Amino acid sequence: MENIKVIVWGLGAMGGGMARMILQKKGMEIVGAIASRPEKSGKDLGEVLDLDIKTGVTVTSDPQTVLKQPADIVLLATSSFTREVYPQLQRIIESGKNVITIAEEMAYPAYREPELAAKIDKMAKDHRVTVLGTGINPGFVLDTLIIALSGVCMDIKKITARRINDLSPFGTTVMRTQGVGTTVDEFRRGLEEGTIVGHIGFPESISLISEALGLEIDEIRQTREPIVSSVYRETPYARVEPGMVAGCKHTGIGFRKGEPVIVLEHPQQIRPELENVETGDYIEIEGTPNISLAIKPEIPGGIGTIAIAVNMIPKVINANPGLVTMKDLPVPAALMGDIRKFVRGGVNNA
Amino acid sequence: MENIKVIVWGLGAMGGGMARMILQKKGMEIVGAIASRPEKSGKDLGEVLDLDIKTGVTVTSDPQTVLKQPADIVLLATSSFTREVYPQLQRIIESGKNVITIAEEMAYPAYREPELAAKIDKMAKDHRVTVLGTGINPGFVLDTLIIALSGVCMDIKKITARRINDLSPFGTTVMRTQGVGTTVDEFRRGLEEGTIVGHIGFPESISLISEALGLEIDEIRQTREPIVSSVYRETPYARVEPGMVAGCKHTGIGFRKGEPVIVLEHPQQIRPELENVETGDYIEIEGTPNISLAIKPEIPGGIGTIAIAVNMIPKVINANPGLVTMKDLPVPAALMGDIRKFVRGGVNNA
Repeated sequence: MENIKVIVWGLGAMGGGMARMILQKKGMEIVGAIASRPEKSGKDLGEVLDLDIKTGVTVTSDPQTVLKQPADIVLLATSSFTREVYPQLQRIIESGKNVITIAEEMAYPAYREPELAAKIDKMAKDHRVTVLGTGINPGFVLDTLIIALSGVCMDIKKITARRINDLSPFGTTVMRTQGVGTTVDEFRRGLEEGTIVGHIGFPESISLISEALGLEIDEIRQTREPIVSSVYRETPYARVEPGMVAGCKHTGIGFRKGEPVIVLEHPQQIRPELENVETGDYIEIEGTPNISLAIKPEIPGGIGTIAIAVNMIPKVINANPGLVTMKDLPVPAALMGDIRKFVRGGVNNA
Repeated sequence: MENIKVIVWGLGAMGGGMARMILQKKGMEIVGAIASRPEKSGKDLGEVLDLDIKTGVTVTSDPQTVLKQPADIVLLATSSFTREVYPQLQRIIESGKNVITIAEEMAYPAYREPELAAKIDKMAKDHRVTVLGTGINPGFVLDTLIIALSGVCMDIKKITARRINDLSPFGTTVMRTQGVGTTVDEFRRGLEEGTIVGHIGFPESISLISEALGLEIDEIRQTREPIVSSVYRETPYARVEPGMVAGCKHTGIGFRKGEPVIVLEHPQQIRPELENVETGDYIEIEGTPNISLAIKPEIPGGIGTIAIAVNMIPKVINANPGLVTMKDLPVPAALMGDIRKFVRGGVNNA
């Protein structure tokens, strides 16, 4: 049986991490790598990934040529938004390849882009391929894990979940979009101007849970509040004086007939330990029975996103054609040993 | 669209609980109820379930007649062992109905009964129905939940999980099979004679995890130790003097080439709080990343088993024919509102 052939599109922190993970797995190989930044083009993938190996795969910024060759799946890590990845998805699907993307909106694209979602579904079915959006969040902590846990409940009254994490490892882009290091006034202005966005994915997670459990959420509201520091906090990319903003407390609430049924909180900040904030992932289900789950510390976002995207490969290859979400596929699982054993029937059909 | 039609086979604590849960759900109805105990036969299901309603379903101890009528699925809650449920599964499958059973060994029947498992799979495919074994454990806490959590891992070195629960609500059968109230000598003798069994399901959970993650476990060992109480403990069904046995600490270990890779512990006892034992479900994954999960208190076993068996109904109806395990189906989910919305295409095909 031939290796599972993968194309990685997007070689930033996430796409690059996926490529590194795949290179370590048996039974999978990278047959193409597309970088958004032209300066990576022409180099060996090993060099672009800062590895001491030559992979034989030349990075390119030309999707056309790469997508012409046979592959089972494309991992797409280029943007957060359905509208932005749509033309890329279109080219991949038309080339007859399955896709996993970590674009946050693609975890449940029908929320913001119902028309594009319908088009993607139709295209995927026409070309007999499967399209999945996933990641740590949306994709796992504040949706798939909650859904799985609810499976032991007879009845659900309310779901409250919190992902309290540490932004300290991240760089300038994250600092800017989360408002780290701003004054409270700058933070408010950033929210209005759209430069400070907080978390992307609450409506998608809430919609995914609602549909999986039949909760009939009819309204989703979000709030973004500054996390004002009372101490001095510092990372290589940000400095926060007392009284300034250390991060963004972003909340998404799903209502049914005016009642809050799904409450998701994601306070993200640098150096939370300086004010004794314990990071972790927390899920509380109010129902029959009540369930209280804690993962401490939180599942690391970068590693988690890379891992779940790669781990879903065989499940997407095995799935029926169309646009799918995490609730439609078998439970995610780490993949050890030869990855080909997880794929039913043959591979390389494109 | 017609209701989803369910037959419940076995009306003990678990089967009876499933029947009660189904009666509360919209879009599902019970069309037949089979009791093992003849004294329940001839009565209305409502009376047998201690409900103040008349259901119109007469409980019978004759499966033949009940299975002749159309239904989408049978919930089977009669025994823990594949060999014992096999003739019942055969009749259900030959009548063209899907099955969910909570027989512990059926969570992964290929471990103890590979030949029967192959026969069940063939029969199910021949009759175009799906067969699933599930429950809280095996079925969820020490397998499906671990598998789901591993989905965010790049690499797995070792998995250690503990389900620490309280046997106090249970009756005489559980007290006897867990050795509660025996002396240490009686406990040892009970283990040898097979009257004290501890937990049923470790090899099944370990096999399920191993196959889902590709861990290539090649040996499974189990140990059962008495939990000797240092204080007096009492429930309506058991008394334990200091020095006597309050329960059974049962451990299952999956090895690969002599190395323990999956360690599952399930200490079950009455009144654990009297010796400050905090009940809960705990999962530790050693890998990339490390993950530490705690659910406190533990998910209640009875409610959890009832709920997951009923909640898997639409996923089993939607699934491809054959014998399946929890790792093959979409993530479990609570089912709220009209259950028919979770079923693709039509129902009542049998």
